[in-house]
Amino acid sequence: MQGKTLEQLAEHVGGKVVGDGGIMIDAASTLDEAGPGEITFFTNKKYEPQLKTTKAEAVIVAEKVETDSALLIAEDPYYAFMQIVVLLHGHRKHEMVGISEGASIAKNAKLGSGCNVHDFVTICNSARIGKNCNIYPGVFVGPNVQIGDDCIIYPNAVIYDNCEIGNRVIIHANASIGQDGYGFATHKGIHHKIPQIGRVVLEDDVEIGSCCAIERGTLNETVIGAGSKIGDSVAIGHGTKIGAHCLIVPQVGISGSVTLGHHCVLGGQVGVAGHLKIGNMVTIGAQAGVSNSIGDGATVLGSPAIEAGKAKRALATIQYLPDMRKSIRKIEKQIAKLESTEK
Amino acid sequence: MQGKTLEQLAEHVGGKVVGDGGIMIDAASTLDEAGPGEITFFTNKKYEPQLKTTKAEAVIVAEKVETDSALLIAEDPYYAFMQIVVLLHGHRKHEMVGISEGASIAKNAKLGSGCNVHDFVTICNSARIGKNCNIYPGVFVGPNVQIGDDCIIYPNAVIYDNCEIGNRVIIHANASIGQDGYGFATHKGIHHKIPQIGRVVLEDDVEIGSCCAIERGTLNETVIGAGSKIGDSVAIGHGTKIGAHCLIVPQVGISGSVTLGHHCVLGGQVGVAGHLKIGNMVTIGAQAGVSNSIGDGATVLGSPAIEAGKAKRALATIQYLPDMRKSIRKIEKQIAKLESTEK
Amino acid sequence: MQGKTLEQLAEHVGGKVVGDGGIMIDAASTLDEAGPGEITFFTNKKYEPQLKTTKAEAVIVAEKVETDSALLIAEDPYYAFMQIVVLLHGHRKHEMVGISEGASIAKNAKLGSGCNVHDFVTICNSARIGKNCNIYPGVFVGPNVQIGDDCIIYPNAVIYDNCEIGNRVIIHANASIGQDGYGFATHKGIHHKIPQIGRVVLEDDVEIGSCCAIERGTLNETVIGAGSKIGDSVAIGHGTKIGAHCLIVPQVGISGSVTLGHHCVLGGQVGVAGHLKIGNMVTIGAQAGVSNSIGDGATVLGSPAIEAGKAKRALATIQYLPDMRKSIRKIEKQIAKLESTEK
Repeated sequence: MQGKTLEQLAEHVGGKVVGDGGIMIDAASTLDEAGPGEITFFTNKKYEPQLKTTKAEAVIVAEKVETDSALLIAEDPYYAFMQIVVLLHGHRKHEMVGISEGASIAKNAKLGSGCNVHDFVTICNSARIGKNCNIYPGVFVGPNVQIGDDCIIYPNAVIYDNCEIGNRVIIHANASIGQDGYGFATHKGIHHKIPQIGRVVLEDDVEIGSCCAIERGTLNETVIGAGSKIGDSVAIGHGTKIGAHCLIVPQVGISGSVTLGHHCVLGGQVGVAGHLKIGNMVTIGAQAGVSNSIGDGATVLGSPAIEAGKAKRALATIQYLPDMRKSIRKIEKQIAKLESTEK
Repeated sequence: MQGKTLEQLAEHVGGKVVGDGGIMIDAASTLDEAGPGEITFFTNKKYEPQLKTTKAEAVIVAEKVETDSALLIAEDPYYAFMQIVVLLHGHRKHEMVGISEGASIAKNAKLGSGCNVHDFVTICNSARIGKNCNIYPGVFVGPNVQIGDDCIIYPNAVIYDNCEIGNRVIIHANASIGQDGYGFATHKGIHHKIPQIGRVVLEDDVEIGSCCAIERGTLNETVIGAGSKIGDSVAIGHGTKIGAHCLIVPQVGISGSVTLGHHCVLGGQVGVAGHLKIGNMVTIGAQAGVSNSIGDGATVLGSPAIEAGKAKRALATIQYLPDMRKSIRKIEKQIAKLESTEK
Repeated sequence: MQGKTLEQLAEHVGGKVVGDGGIMIDAASTLDEAGPGEITFFTNKKYEPQLKTTKAEAVIVAEKVETDSALLIAEDPYYAFMQIVVLLHGHRKHEMVGISEGASIAKNAKLGSGCNVHDFVTICNSARIGKNCNIYPGVFVGPNVQIGDDCIIYPNAVIYDNCEIGNRVIIHANASIGQDGYGFATHKGIHHKIPQIGRVVLEDDVEIGSCCAIERGTLNETVIGAGSKIGDSVAIGHGTKIGAHCLIVPQVGISGSVTLGHHCVLGGQVGVAGHLKIGNMVTIGAQAGVSNSIGDGATVLGSPAIEAGKAKRALATIQYLPDMRKSIRKIEKQIAKLESTEK
């Protein structure tokens, strides 16, 4: 780790220094924990009080704020922060192990140059892996799987047969890609397994969290679109197609045969029923249960999910239900009395 | 993959052709994606418009429909479809690796004939595995585990000591069977671990999804009944007994000491509290939270779960809550006015 | 397994026998399944009827009850039961395999005495492991990971680089500790990965369930406090700090940058939004969705979560919503009529 001056960092991100541009910055940290030589960022109003107490050498902000630290003003502070973390710390460095003899690699599998394949990795028949991939211990690359360049597959992740992984894809530990879809034909009370002859396609720049379970299609493809980021412990059903640049955070569950547009954001523990069509740029609030298709640009919440503003007001009113019920009963009595005196 | 005539397929499933029985079918696909030489099925009214546009050579249906494709009429079209997919495509073919020298197998473990045990598999002391099993890389078969015939254990699945697996059981990647139940005795603020001396029993024809976590019983058995199919990322607590032929879809969580009857269907993300008794043929809607025992044949929904029809109406009414609250306030004022003029 | 007299057991737990203290007890079981020579416990009123039918030789209770079995009266019967299960059955015995040659251990990794490291384990550069640890097959211990004494890491669990594990920590199968936090800076529609340079710290006596996913901090630490027990399939976000002695049961999801106090209890499938502060001794009911910070000692329920008593009443009233709506409409008509006759 080598330091940069604040001025150098500002240049790097196209920003502007307020204060001493010559101070040395050698690490990034949080508002709360940053100290001498460290830079942090401020984007969430919630943490405004910490601007007064932070010991950070410098803070990346969108506009001038009250603080003792120097400021780096950037149009998109969080993006600037990302660029600076990459500059100062970089992404994880992978051990240069080459192709380990302790891996089990089929004779007809193909590996591009620059790959690191660790001990206890299995690469099956006819699998093809591109250049500069890091395949960690315990990873299983099934028969006929195709993986692009610059991918990182963390320990014990499993990729079933025939799946296709794009370039620069990251799959975290213990994820499962391409297991059989949940498909059974129930006949006279017995559930008969339907062969799941489809596969999973992860397009370029996808990231898959730990312990995710992405089912292969029954007959076709389950697709995660380019640049989409899937959090930990997400389950995605067979034949579902997720568009590009979606954010699907941890513990979301999406049933089979769903179509999701691009740039959708799904909050934690969201559930989406099968066979629905979700448009582009849809936002689904945490724990929502989506049981109907949703048009482009909508923001929904609740279970069943409805327009978010409406849902928020409605959910916040649930607590008054017992009082409302009492009021109604009281009113009914009052009305009965009024009606009787009326007669 | 070898083609069959539509007539041959109809015979195979006991169905009837409408159109040219001589056309060759060599693959199965979806209504949407099927093309020449491909057969598909129609069971979900939702996809009716696609009957007009499908390019499928033939469609399996329950009764005559308007479409340009030939028809294969079958009593249970989805079941017929399953039979045809099996006929045309078959289930996954497993590589015939025999017993790999790269596996770690205890001397006193027993393996039936016809098994494939891959590299990096661990089979511990006194484990017994039946005939024709496929044990994929990274699988852990703990001490004294018993596995029946014709099982498939996918990569990196873990089976703890003493568990018992029936015949024709399928366990998908990264599932965990028989880890310690969540059992602690809290005394003076410290949680003391209770030895979990029970085990898990998976009966015949069970399928377990990827990343499932099935706890062993504290003192007794956690049981998944014959023919039950467990989706991905399902968590099942210690000592819970699931009956035969249940469908438990992804991300369901069932607490400990629950008893579930046969032929129950649990929707996505359902949660069931501990120590409950759920009857036979119970259906629990997605995201429901079950906090009371349920009798045979019931269909429930909501959190807390109640009868589904009632729940559906109630949940659909939540959106009107703010309006209802306003109405009540308005009514209260109107009544006050009426009462005052009354006097 | 060696028997003890009931009197010996009573002495061991500081309890008192009612009945024949000389009877031999050699196993623990449930009220329902216990038979001759077996001891069980009674703490849940729900199971009172079983006191009449149990075939247990003895029952641990808090006070005298009607039953044919002998009684062991203890102040904290569940704690006494735990002590007796430990005495009679003990915790899991681990195979004494020493340091397997089939493991892949970096030259500069350090291992304390008395460890068992199984085949197919990877221990990376600069990792340090304390005394008497059991590292099961397929476990990955990343570069620079530090593990204390007496830990048990079950098969295929993965610990990413730099994480720190205390003493007596148990990590179950297929858990992932320290994968990258879900951190992206979205700029012009593209999600740019922020290097996750923090780590995870599991303090002493923590237990992590199967298939858990604990993210490393972006810049700082994700911490699970001493003695906290995490159930299966729990997902915890980057930078979240969980206090000591918490009980987090299966399928809970906690977002990033949350602070949780000590002795909190989170029910199944609870979700906690990011950046919240949850106090000490907070109880959160199953499936609750926490979207606001919570003070010490509170008990909450519902989504959004509110005070539990209030929530329980409110949630139980949801089923009456359609009737309430009808009543309001009827009332409005009655009022209109009353008002018109008034004029």
